[in-house]
Amino acid sequence: MTPSKATNITWHDGTVSPEERHKTMGQKGGTLWLTGLSASGKSTIAVALEQVLLQRGKHAYRLDGDNIRHGLNNNLGFSAEDRAENIRRIGEVAKLFTEAGIVTIASFISPYTADRDNARRMHADAGLAFLEVFVDCPLEEAERRDPKGLYKKARAGEIKGFTGIDDPYEAPANAELHLHTDQLSVAESVEAMLELLEKKDLLSA
Amino acid sequence: MTPSKATNITWHDGTVSPEERHKTMGQKGGTLWLTGLSASGKSTIAVALEQVLLQRGKHAYRLDGDNIRHGLNNNLGFSAEDRAENIRRIGEVAKLFTEAGIVTIASFISPYTADRDNARRMHADAGLAFLEVFVDCPLEEAERRDPKGLYKKARAGEIKGFTGIDDPYEAPANAELHLHTDQLSVAESVEAMLELLEKKDLLSA
Repeated sequence: MTPSKATNITWHDGTVSPEERHKTMGQKGGTLWLTGLSASGKSTIAVALEQVLLQRGKHAYRLDGDNIRHGLNNNLGFSAEDRAENIRRIGEVAKLFTEAGIVTIASFISPYTADRDNARRMHADAGLAFLEVFVDCPLEEAERRDPKGLYKKARAGEIKGFTGIDDPYEAPANAELHLHTDQLSVAESVEAMLELLEKKDLLSA
Repeated sequence: MTPSKATNITWHDGTVSPEERHKTMGQKGGTLWLTGLSASGKSTIAVALEQVLLQRGKHAYRLDGDNIRHGLNNNLGFSAEDRAENIRRIGEVAKLFTEAGIVTIASFISPYTADRDNARRMHADAGLAFLEVFVDCPLEEAERRDPKGLYKKARAGEIKGFTGIDDPYEAPANAELHLHTDQLSVAESVEAMLELLEKKDLLSA
């Protein structure tokens, strides 16, 4: 430890250890990766989960289209290459938040298995938790909800490459959690995610 | 509030407010942007500051070359365009961490005023604190230190476009803090940054 003459400022060689960080945060944190069709309910349950975690004094942060597409990824379009880069950057940012000890809730359609597996691998390589949550709602139900009228536009050909219509959604085969959001209430989905976080011991230091 | 039948799960419409987040974090957070020549002492004081904040129960996270260049920005080189994109992405990620209520310590040479001002503007547009810290060490002293032998290689022409040698460093004109790291101890620099964070009221909710 290097003492300061005037003040109580000390530090050790090297950087902050994961254990030191978890102790200060009161939790380990981890990435919950919500994947599913547009209108499957990802945002709704992500927003509710974040609130419930904060109510309980836990630290959580949501990554979604609103804060990513208009910021970090505002220079990406919807080509195959740009879609992969979109998910790659989100995976890297989720990894940083989780390294910081936060419960990171990433909520993106993320239709391709390879891109999700890439995000999973980044976390695994860094020894960080990655939990894939399949937000599973049948296409017919998602299309019936269609809160932004996007499915209607996709069916009319006004939007090209829309997941579920003229671009594939590759359902996760090994998700840590499979939520049938056409059958569960929001509270039930939130509860299932909380149970998963508890089971993986990510909410304690 | 929407109550669950079985459990104590409630939430409100809309997303978490900044005030709710600050309350849970016990602080507002903000971005400290450390800029200066290679070997000026940025990493040393960033690492020490992060430790001291954590000791005091505050939440801090460091963004630096180690966790950014090998991850989020591993597809960027050193062209003028890629350097600007490097700093742009870091600015966006710092903004997200600061929105999450973290004291975000970004430690990068970031030699160009335009790029730093861009990061500042992103934060200002989102109502988030951005504090520029000029880590000021004379080139002669930085070159004398040369812990990685980079200046030597740059002088020998083995590295091209090295800041301070054959690429300019544009010193900040309006940094919130100007640290002469050739004259200050690490503890003194850390103390000055802590005082700035206190003065801006970023360490309380």
